[in-house]
Amino acid sequence: MLKTISSWRSFGGTLRVFDHDSTVCRTSMRFSVYSPPQPGKAPVLWYLSGLTCTWENVMSKSGLQRAAAELGMVVIAPDTSPRGEGVADDPEYDLGQGAGFYLTATQAPWSTHFRMDQYIVQELQQLVARNFPNADMTRQGITGHSMGGHGALTLHLKHPQLYRSVSAFSPIVAPTQVPWGQKAFTAYLGDDRDTWSDYDACELVKSRPSQAHVLIDQGGADSFLERELQPERFVAAAKSAGQQVTLRMQEGYDHSYYFIATFIDDHLRWHAQALR
Amino acid sequence: MLKTISSWRSFGGTLRVFDHDSTVCRTSMRFSVYSPPQPGKAPVLWYLSGLTCTWENVMSKSGLQRAAAELGMVVIAPDTSPRGEGVADDPEYDLGQGAGFYLTATQAPWSTHFRMDQYIVQELQQLVARNFPNADMTRQGITGHSMGGHGALTLHLKHPQLYRSVSAFSPIVAPTQVPWGQKAFTAYLGDDRDTWSDYDACELVKSRPSQAHVLIDQGGADSFLERELQPERFVAAAKSAGQQVTLRMQEGYDHSYYFIATFIDDHLRWHAQALR
Repeated sequence: MLKTISSWRSFGGTLRVFDHDSTVCRTSMRFSVYSPPQPGKAPVLWYLSGLTCTWENVMSKSGLQRAAAELGMVVIAPDTSPRGEGVADDPEYDLGQGAGFYLTATQAPWSTHFRMDQYIVQELQQLVARNFPNADMTRQGITGHSMGGHGALTLHLKHPQLYRSVSAFSPIVAPTQVPWGQKAFTAYLGDDRDTWSDYDACELVKSRPSQAHVLIDQGGADSFLERELQPERFVAAAKSAGQQVTLRMQEGYDHSYYFIATFIDDHLRWHAQALR
Repeated sequence: MLKTISSWRSFGGTLRVFDHDSTVCRTSMRFSVYSPPQPGKAPVLWYLSGLTCTWENVMSKSGLQRAAAELGMVVIAPDTSPRGEGVADDPEYDLGQGAGFYLTATQAPWSTHFRMDQYIVQELQQLVARNFPNADMTRQGITGHSMGGHGALTLHLKHPQLYRSVSAFSPIVAPTQVPWGQKAFTAYLGDDRDTWSDYDACELVKSRPSQAHVLIDQGGADSFLERELQPERFVAAAKSAGQQVTLRMQEGYDHSYYFIATFIDDHLRWHAQALR
């Protein structure tokens, strides 16, 4: 069922890339798993990537394997959307392949394949539980970058018992209020904005704050900060709802993996501590 | 003279990419410099990349900024060859653009631009001394990967007072004896093999061992190990010449940056210690 595409030794553990036929996305999907060197069960951290990325960006550029090996954590990085010739796409980078937005599309042509939330929460969850005996499925956390930060926050808020810890790098926190989200949600979910709020972290936290303490790192020199990200919206919504959140503005840092690499150790420790 | 192409904050320091008109290579060249957060003079580590790479691979994939920031080291990564429309090239990855082999080509069409050893030892050396006041040019080390490991070993052995410390990842140690080197040296230097030995670490170490202790990491599962790399050749030549060398065979690791990232901290500490 799982086909191993690649395997590398990394920081004493193993990074592997798998291909499988997804019943949810109705096409083949790839994801990567880093397994630390320690024997026995390890907590699981899900990393959701941003626009255009695959399983590879975070594994090749963030250096997270170092802390994952030290702390003894399994890290899983799914793709950001279904891909391939039979899958709908758009010429722009912020819609279609590479831009799944961690939702279930209801509008044609996207509704055929674009179901990244169900894919991650249900299908990939079961697949990992069945195939990775070192993954302790009772101790899972979730993080992500940009569009993947949106994914991490929304999936945590909707499934707080599944993803018990949560953090994000430069997340889209209010997709219903910013251009990236409005464009994608119009395409994937249609014009009825009532259906959008179920995928908006600021809306979700108002009605269902979790017991977790949310860590957010945001680069102060991020060119998407003012137009697309606006993390202060989430801080305000979380505070009024009683959700604990720490937003760290990191002066001078941008939206790149040079930023993520700088602070990824802090995030792994944050999750390791919460999942202890 | 130096044009800044990109600049990122990284681990509290700054990663910058520069473009300049090279008089040695007779075309514009790019290189990257990581400056650590500490004020004052810092030792300088040169990182020479392998076939096909640019300044970017090591800076985006190795995670070396972490240790460079901690130890207070400037790290410089040049390109692996001249590039661009007016520069000779070859359709294969192991000759021409991206495959400069850190030598001065004497044969047409390569001799017009391919002078990576002079470029690095002379021109870039002077450029860095003039433009980076935090670079302590009295404390320099050199390292590299694969073809860049060949570059590091040979440039150190020829300029031991300039590059006082040396290490390498999966280096080509005997280019005159293996297919990659024989192909490149035939093209760049011609059929007279007497001219080749000046660019062969195993040959150089016999006649001019240095006072430095050479650290080499080699992946045991590296698919190029037996045909192209053969590090035991260097260990044998070094030992008979009285050159100190430590070869660490890292079982299960391949030729990728996942291997380099795993051990890059050790190399930075090795150089920091030698340059203290």
